Amino acid sequence: MFTLDPQLEKDCIDLGDLPLSKVLLMNDRQYPWIILVPRVAGVTEIFQLSEMEQHQLNKESAALAKWMAAYFKAEKMNIAALGNVVSQLHVHHIARFKKDLAWPKPVWGVTAATAYGEEQMHSLALSVCEEIRKFEGAFEPKFS
Amino acid sequence: MFTLDPQLEKDCIDLGDLPLSKVLLMNDRQYPWIILVPRVAGVTEIFQLSEMEQHQLNKESAALAKWMAAYFKAEKMNIAALGNVVSQLHVHHIARFKKDLAWPKPVWGVTAATAYGEEQMHSLALSVCEEIRKFEGAFEPKFS
Repeated sequence: MFTLDPQLEKDCIDLGDLPLSKVLLMNDRQYPWIILVPRVAGVTEIFQLSEMEQHQLNKESAALAKWMAAYFKAEKMNIAALGNVVSQLHVHHIARFKKDLAWPKPVWGVTAATAYGEEQMHSLALSVCEEIRKFEGAFEPKFS
Repeated sequence: MFTLDPQLEKDCIDLGDLPLSKVLLMNDRQYPWIILVPRVAGVTEIFQLSEMEQHQLNKESAALAKWMAAYFKAEKMNIAALGNVVSQLHVHHIARFKKDLAWPKPVWGVTAATAYGEEQMHSLALSVCEEIRKFEGAFEPKFS
């Protein structure tokens, strides 16, 4: 049975479920950063998913990245499945800007995460959930 | 018309062409590191590819990652489309090990690339080309 890795649970806000993936907002106000976690137990690599699951992950990832790029006016999207620390398969989607703290480096390990304030987090989570519903009707949000 | 970004051309060895992507071996002997570059002009993000191209990229990426994980006995695969420095869409596939130089960090920016010796590079390029032919008959290798 799928359960979310405790580290991801600690670092992120659970926004809800797409058909395949759990959608997490990284609790780091330095970057717009959303993580997709396919709800498939025991998987650490994309190639371990079935072909149909891979296809669905790609669909969810591309739709999310396209929306993030437009909504946050990103100068570049960074999409990555790394998993050196948390091996449970999870795909980062980070909107990047030439003026952000880590540019042009990848964000990992540059600065420690800076948590959102409670109110800012709630308002962003609500907006993101509403927006995801617009391009993916099957999304089941935790914030509405 | 598609032309390979000059920085990628400089940093990598061109191994040949899969149906969609050019296959590059990163000239860094610190990590087994292969880059896929879809041969589609003007594309910087995965979501800018057509649905068919996205599907093909995912197929090529998953097959490559699965083979790399087995062949190099990777402890984790890192798959990433970043593009903050070179914006031409390219997808990194890096075999990671708990004893490698950057572990558990991502590899970018940790140490400068260390080029292969001419002979070592040629022998690795040849082996990788032979191996890719085994799982993807449509691969057109530059080394054979």
